[in-house]
Amino acid sequence: MNPEDEQPKNETPPVEGDDDRTVVRIPRPGREASPAEPELHERIQGARPGDRTIRLTRPGEQKLRRLGAGAFEATVNVLRPTTRLGRFTAGIRHILIGRPLATADQAHERLSKLKALAVFSSDNLSSSAYATEEILLVLILAGTGSLSYSVPIALAIACLAAIVVTSYVQLVRAYPGGGGDYAVTKENLGVPPSLVIGSTLFVDYILTVAVSTAAGVAAITSAAPELHSARIEIAVVFVTLLTIGNLRGIRESGSLFAIPPYVFILSFGGMLAIGLVRLALGDELHAATQASALQEGTQTLTLFLLLRAFSSGAAALTGIEAIADGVPSFKPPEARNAATTLVWMACILGSFFVGTTVLATHFDIVPAEDRTVVSQIAATVFGEGPFFYLVQVSTALILVLAANTAFAGLPTLASVMARDRVMPTQFAFRGDRLAFSNGILVLGLASSAVLVLFHAETHRLIPLYAFGVFVAFTLSQGGMVVHWRRARTPHWRLYLALNGLGMVVTGVVAVIVGATKFAAGAWLSMSAMAVLFVVLWRITEHYKDTQDQLGVGLPDQASVAEHFYGVSGGRSNTVIVPVDQINRAVLRTVAYARTLSEQAVAVYVTDEREAGDAFRRQWEESVPDVPLTVVESPYRSLIEPLLAFIEGMDRTRPDQAVTVVLPEYVVKRVWHRALHNQLGVRLKNALRNRPNTVIVEVPYHLER
Amino acid sequence: MNPEDEQPKNETPPVEGDDDRTVVRIPRPGREASPAEPELHERIQGARPGDRTIRLTRPGEQKLRRLGAGAFEATVNVLRPTTRLGRFTAGIRHILIGRPLATADQAHERLSKLKALAVFSSDNLSSSAYATEEILLVLILAGTGSLSYSVPIALAIACLAAIVVTSYVQLVRAYPGGGGDYAVTKENLGVPPSLVIGSTLFVDYILTVAVSTAAGVAAITSAAPELHSARIEIAVVFVTLLTIGNLRGIRESGSLFAIPPYVFILSFGGMLAIGLVRLALGDELHAATQASALQEGTQTLTLFLLLRAFSSGAAALTGIEAIADGVPSFKPPEARNAATTLVWMACILGSFFVGTTVLATHFDIVPAEDRTVVSQIAATVFGEGPFFYLVQVSTALILVLAANTAFAGLPTLASVMARDRVMPTQFAFRGDRLAFSNGILVLGLASSAVLVLFHAETHRLIPLYAFGVFVAFTLSQGGMVVHWRRARTPHWRLYLALNGLGMVVTGVVAVIVGATKFAAGAWLSMSAMAVLFVVLWRITEHYKDTQDQLGVGLPDQASVAEHFYGVSGGRSNTVIVPVDQINRAVLRTVAYARTLSEQAVAVYVTDEREAGDAFRRQWEESVPDVPLTVVESPYRSLIEPLLAFIEGMDRTRPDQAVTVVLPEYVVKRVWHRALHNQLGVRLKNALRNRPNTVIVEVPYHLER
Repeated sequence: MNPEDEQPKNETPPVEGDDDRTVVRIPRPGREASPAEPELHERIQGARPGDRTIRLTRPGEQKLRRLGAGAFEATVNVLRPTTRLGRFTAGIRHILIGRPLATADQAHERLSKLKALAVFSSDNLSSSAYATEEILLVLILAGTGSLSYSVPIALAIACLAAIVVTSYVQLVRAYPGGGGDYAVTKENLGVPPSLVIGSTLFVDYILTVAVSTAAGVAAITSAAPELHSARIEIAVVFVTLLTIGNLRGIRESGSLFAIPPYVFILSFGGMLAIGLVRLALGDELHAATQASALQEGTQTLTLFLLLRAFSSGAAALTGIEAIADGVPSFKPPEARNAATTLVWMACILGSFFVGTTVLATHFDIVPAEDRTVVSQIAATVFGEGPFFYLVQVSTALILVLAANTAFAGLPTLASVMARDRVMPTQFAFRGDRLAFSNGILVLGLASSAVLVLFHAETHRLIPLYAFGVFVAFTLSQGGMVVHWRRARTPHWRLYLALNGLGMVVTGVVAVIVGATKFAAGAWLSMSAMAVLFVVLWRITEHYKDTQDQLGVGLPDQASVAEHFYGVSGGRSNTVIVPVDQINRAVLRTVAYARTLSEQAVAVYVTDEREAGDAFRRQWEESVPDVPLTVVESPYRSLIEPLLAFIEGMDRTRPDQAVTVVLPEYVVKRVWHRALHNQLGVRLKNALRNRPNTVIVEVPYHLER
Repeated sequence: MNPEDEQPKNETPPVEGDDDRTVVRIPRPGREASPAEPELHERIQGARPGDRTIRLTRPGEQKLRRLGAGAFEATVNVLRPTTRLGRFTAGIRHILIGRPLATADQAHERLSKLKALAVFSSDNLSSSAYATEEILLVLILAGTGSLSYSVPIALAIACLAAIVVTSYVQLVRAYPGGGGDYAVTKENLGVPPSLVIGSTLFVDYILTVAVSTAAGVAAITSAAPELHSARIEIAVVFVTLLTIGNLRGIRESGSLFAIPPYVFILSFGGMLAIGLVRLALGDELHAATQASALQEGTQTLTLFLLLRAFSSGAAALTGIEAIADGVPSFKPPEARNAATTLVWMACILGSFFVGTTVLATHFDIVPAEDRTVVSQIAATVFGEGPFFYLVQVSTALILVLAANTAFAGLPTLASVMARDRVMPTQFAFRGDRLAFSNGILVLGLASSAVLVLFHAETHRLIPLYAFGVFVAFTLSQGGMVVHWRRARTPHWRLYLALNGLGMVVTGVVAVIVGATKFAAGAWLSMSAMAVLFVVLWRITEHYKDTQDQLGVGLPDQASVAEHFYGVSGGRSNTVIVPVDQINRAVLRTVAYARTLSEQAVAVYVTDEREAGDAFRRQWEESVPDVPLTVVESPYRSLIEPLLAFIEGMDRTRPDQAVTVVLPEYVVKRVWHRALHNQLGVRLKNALRNRPNTVIVEVPYHLER
């Protein structure tokens, strides 16, 4: 029961070792070794050197730590890579990011507000790099004269941001344990709305990667316009690097990741401040590609166009929800600190967004295909000097960080949903590399596909983007409304009203965004969400069905085995070993079968009576303690007589499980697989619908 | 040990039943049924109605017959189809072909010479339908004047046939147990030449199907020329029907199959006899499409052209070897009867072939694209009356039968080779439908592809065909030469000389065929044979490697288990059950694990301490007799801590096998598979290289 503690007593000192393990050869207890025996054993066991030796870890490399009777804790050593490549990348990771953090350690290493702002804000703040431009790109359709409408639109979006942030402050206070849109919706509105949230969030994660990467590449190509034609390739390379990095285990938890957001905040804020001060001082600043003359638009300035511009700018609100997910990471008092950070973030976002819009309007900036609005502002304020490049580089960096958050966010959400059994269970354990890998790969592939499909152009992706975000806002605020109605804590009516306002406003915006952007691409993300919803729904239904079927009705204190396999025969098992020849693998299998039951029987199917007799003689000499049954198969089939024998054995021992034990040859080359183990595959298919029949394959490793 | 005999004593009369089984509900022994229990059991076991009931076959439906202690014989009932479709096709098969024959029955139902001729001759005799035409098609290249050379060429081929038949008569006498080219070559020349035979025979089987089908279709389109343009489609349909028929189990063993060869022999022989008699009587008979004037050829009549014509005609010899394979099917004295039948067959072939050639020359027949030479002879002799159509139909039928023999021959050869471990072992049991299926499907697909590739034109396929046949002849005669040198039975020098002559002559012909037909297509079949040879060689090498590794060095009378798992601990097993929740499937799995070892332990991995404590409380109430180990995984991974635990358990009990028992959810829909059983797959991958570790999946059937 205590694997690490009860080491065998008769240890000998280490005799060979590699860099992280020591191999000790231990004589097996209860067995007097005669001189001829080691060789005999090696011959019999078909073992490679070291097979029967026991690997003892050094004390510092213990993988399980005993906590008490029947309780262990896995140490960080379980994650220790065993391959050379694994050790190499682990070394690099250690240098860049530091050791993996246990859940408990994470709890001790809480985030200060300053650090939390860096960790959680990149997705949200980075949108100020493209939101203004998206508004201008719509307004320009009605001519350069309409561009000045961007300032009131930006102010409207800032008000919207204030409402959303207020709502989320409420959510943070109500769920200091870390809510998240999905959890709040599920708790208050039930499963189907939470699946809607799940599907919108999955689509949003894909679009976050695509939009952020596209905008980041635009920041780079604005500084180096000759790269503009290669932007799709650059974007896909970025996504590929992010995918690989995340597959190899890069996390956003290290301090390294706190730097770019502050460089961005300082450089971007500095640019806006200098620009606004110089404007206020009356400097005559104008962009190089300014609207020199009044251009006529192709459309008239309708309310619909204004709403479209508003919808495009509303993408700036994406990422506000991140802090609500991460409340438990804050230093105590968690909720208050998180709320404060949320407000800071919203203030920075609002001022950046409105400031950018005001400067763009006053500099008469017109969106250009190969230069972002932000780069034009930077060029106007700083000229094309080092500060211009600093703004471009920090913008690109924070956008890549924003994309990276999606790579961490999707597996996290998937793990929460898997624990709720609305996603396949293999996503449930977040720390398993494989659990992450699937999500990361899908995210990388899907966002690359989106980037290629939309030519890595931010303004073509934006119409797909904002709808899902506002649906999620609406549902989670709706969840909060229900929460307050149930909770009835002091001032619940006020809070309900605030969240209700948030719900109504974000709901209206969701409708506006959906309606004005439907034809431009929102239909595509809506369809993707609908498909995902159906998939999640069917998974949920299947797991619910499964749970219903597996529901237990066991009386207390009863022995399980008795209930499943009867009282008298409940502890034994009908063990059948089909054999085709006498060799090491077959003998190992028979030996294994004997450990399962003293009454194991071997069965040999032949279509020649003489072969059967010869085999029996050989068998009785080699394995006298396991009875052999020979089944003649005059119709020259193998599988059917075997099945008939298994059925017959099952009938004679109806209160026992039936176990069929077979050797499984583990081969060295892929094509060798076709040459072995067919009987196991066929028996499994044939016995698939028999209850109480188990097929056991005993691996035997071929060396070549 | 005696599944059918030791029926439980406490049977109750049948209470429910379907058309071939009776279901009886038997109270489990040693258990007093309380009124509440049946329902309880149903709830606990997760069983469908009937799960715990015992299926008793009716006396007439016994699947195994007891022969003695530990010896059974499978009855024909093991082949009884269990699906409705299976029963339907079995019924049709029964009507058409009769019951399946056991090996022993076949031995009793030996073939008379007359029946054997029908069974074995179709491949060989059918070639007289196209051999003459193939000669004429080459000679016509040198003008119609050269066509008369076909008679001496046909006579030469008849002599060649006589030599080959003499050689095979020797072979039949030397191997009355049934030799076959492959077996004779392997025994006398060793494995590599036998693999050459194997690869040439596999290619020949494909070409037999293709050539016979093409010629059969040509016989049909000669009678109905409007079908000529659809000949590829017709040929592929024929092959498809043959494939399906053989997949469903049509065999050539029934009496039904004896009719077409005799219809063919009578009608074809009658046509030749009448034609020759009328010629002898001086009737002026001329073909409709005769060579009215002397046409100039495009080539001069060189020795090379004559040899090409000879090579084309030599295809007539294919199929001679069939009787040598089937000696044990003859009535005793087997060898003598087989030899007699062989001589008969050769005489019929020779007279048909020479007769056809003589008539074609005297009727001045010129090969035409849409009419076969045989159909022209038939039309000339009979006019286009019923006898003309009888010749065409019987020719088409015997050609289809010839193709069908390949469908039986390939799996038979594959099974012999699989027993010699030069083919994958799954081909070894001929009676298994799956063993046949693979070979039949490959044969059907390959020959269809060849037919499409060569436009189902016989004369384009012939160049590929004859080379392999003569290589096989040469090698098997070479094998006979070695045989006589070793056996030194009376007159061995004479026999050696005869087989030596056969070897030299067929060797020379093989070279001639290879050289004259190389560019025309023989290179293609040679390449295919070379590739197949390499594949067979590598399979042989791998199995040899495997056998070397599995070779046993067990002392007599020793207990296997002791040698594999030590004396003291040899009979027990470290059984570990990873559990994730308490449900029916998990409890069944735990109950099963308890049947494997009294010391089975459950292990629960969690990343939350509270969840672990809660689970332990629940577990100790539900399953008090199986200890639970909780492993906390602070790094949030599932698989690595589990592996560490398994490793630790293995270290503490180094002399035992380790068995990890998991539930396996057997799902109803294919897409549900993605939602279950991931842990098993991942553990298998992770434990793949650990010796002595077995993963057992206990199936649990989900109903929806």
